[in-house]
Amino acid sequence: MDRPSFDVSPYQRFLGLEWIRWEPGEVEIRLPFREEFLRADDSDWYHGGVVAALIDIAGDYALATRVGDGLPTVDLRVDWLRPARKGALLAVGRAVKVGRTVCTADVEVRDESGQLVAVGRGTFATPK
Amino acid sequence: MDRPSFDVSPYQRFLGLEWIRWEPGEVEIRLPFREEFLRADDSDWYHGGVVAALIDIAGDYALATRVGDGLPTVDLRVDWLRPARKGALLAVGRAVKVGRTVCTADVEVRDESGQLVAVGRGTFATPK
Amino acid sequence: MDRPSFDVSPYQRFLGLEWIRWEPGEVEIRLPFREEFLRADDSDWYHGGVVAALIDIAGDYALATRVGDGLPTVDLRVDWLRPARKGALLAVGRAVKVGRTVCTADVEVRDESGQLVAVGRGTFATPK
Amino acid sequence: MDRPSFDVSPYQRFLGLEWIRWEPGEVEIRLPFREEFLRADDSDWYHGGVVAALIDIAGDYALATRVGDGLPTVDLRVDWLRPARKGALLAVGRAVKVGRTVCTADVEVRDESGQLVAVGRGTFATPK
Repeated sequence: MDRPSFDVSPYQRFLGLEWIRWEPGEVEIRLPFREEFLRADDSDWYHGGVVAALIDIAGDYALATRVGDGLPTVDLRVDWLRPARKGALLAVGRAVKVGRTVCTADVEVRDESGQLVAVGRGTFATPK
Repeated sequence: MDRPSFDVSPYQRFLGLEWIRWEPGEVEIRLPFREEFLRADDSDWYHGGVVAALIDIAGDYALATRVGDGLPTVDLRVDWLRPARKGALLAVGRAVKVGRTVCTADVEVRDESGQLVAVGRGTFATPK
Repeated sequence: MDRPSFDVSPYQRFLGLEWIRWEPGEVEIRLPFREEFLRADDSDWYHGGVVAALIDIAGDYALATRVGDGLPTVDLRVDWLRPARKGALLAVGRAVKVGRTVCTADVEVRDESGQLVAVGRGTFATPK
Repeated sequence: MDRPSFDVSPYQRFLGLEWIRWEPGEVEIRLPFREEFLRADDSDWYHGGVVAALIDIAGDYALATRVGDGLPTVDLRVDWLRPARKGALLAVGRAVKVGRTVCTADVEVRDESGQLVAVGRGTFATPK
């Protein structure tokens, strides 16, 4: 599977995602900041839902590098470790297990200073 | 705590959320459909990240009815049970536990036909 | 599928589980107390790992009522809400979704006074 | 905090745990096999509940190295990746975040051949 384009997805276009790396079992995706991501008008913190979406996408693509297609997310756990502040975020997704029925991926999200702001782990359905 | 306004949050404004219910320990929130929520141009399914954000928000507000303030989300599990298709979504959040250190909330998301499309459960930090 | 016996499993025999209910989509299982379940010699609290095992088993059997066989657990989230003290525990497992690839179950664990002590939610692989 | 003894806990004595490593932010624990851990009389697979307990314990102690005391587990996700067969298991727990209110730990469980059989991630309450 070639590296897919974020341009074919309305929600990924809204997020404005950018590819950094697409390798077997591992991807890195950049999320540039935009004002709509803020949790409150008087805050410079990301809304957690934006970080969760980034994790879902990075986990999915990490597995897509291995199974050759996008995978429906079955379930996902997100841990928000520190506030993600204004500025780009970088998500690294890794394939943990590729099974016949389901796959597992891990994701780490860091801010521009390299600080870990969130981690995620999910189960995805392997395409037939 | 009075029912908060979605208008003070850039990301919640993007989502276009509407209040249905705000009661002690339980809230209901409506997410009207918009094209930016789609996962792909050739699909009528929501992107999972939008559903995750709705769950995070509904769980948080269910607890805010009890603790009188918004709570930082510590971690969240989302299970996507069926595709959420074009059309509004309804999220019901319930406080499961209100503790001195952390709180727990459950959320169910249904489509307009009443079909359960996703569930979520999360831990939130109790404000001091 | 008839209600299975706990007697064919070494670990379930150690736990000493008892059937309360076996219905389509819902089961109830009783865990009588034994001293080996304690977390510390000077405590009357259950070790969390015993509660997690009870949740795993109740979720699995809730789905087995529907799919006619035991299901491998893919992943499980457990939330410990309150200390579970000496005395029997009761777990109610419910099938949330039965899919072709994976199933989802919810479990609530209460003590003898009816107090909710833990909840769990898991994904299980549907037998072929 | 010195390395604690497994001997003061009835459930940890049942498990028969052994210390391999106790370092700041990281621990390694060995679980020798015993027949009571099997999921079925005609199987050589561990019951998942035993693996979940090992993960809970390794995550807790990884954080205890940093906060100087055991921590109540708030919630835990376990992903069973492959069957764990007869033989010892090794769990490595790592502190991911040590916060004022809550802490996060990751755990990997391998069999004697080094194969990854399960992973876990949990939130624990920081002692006051």
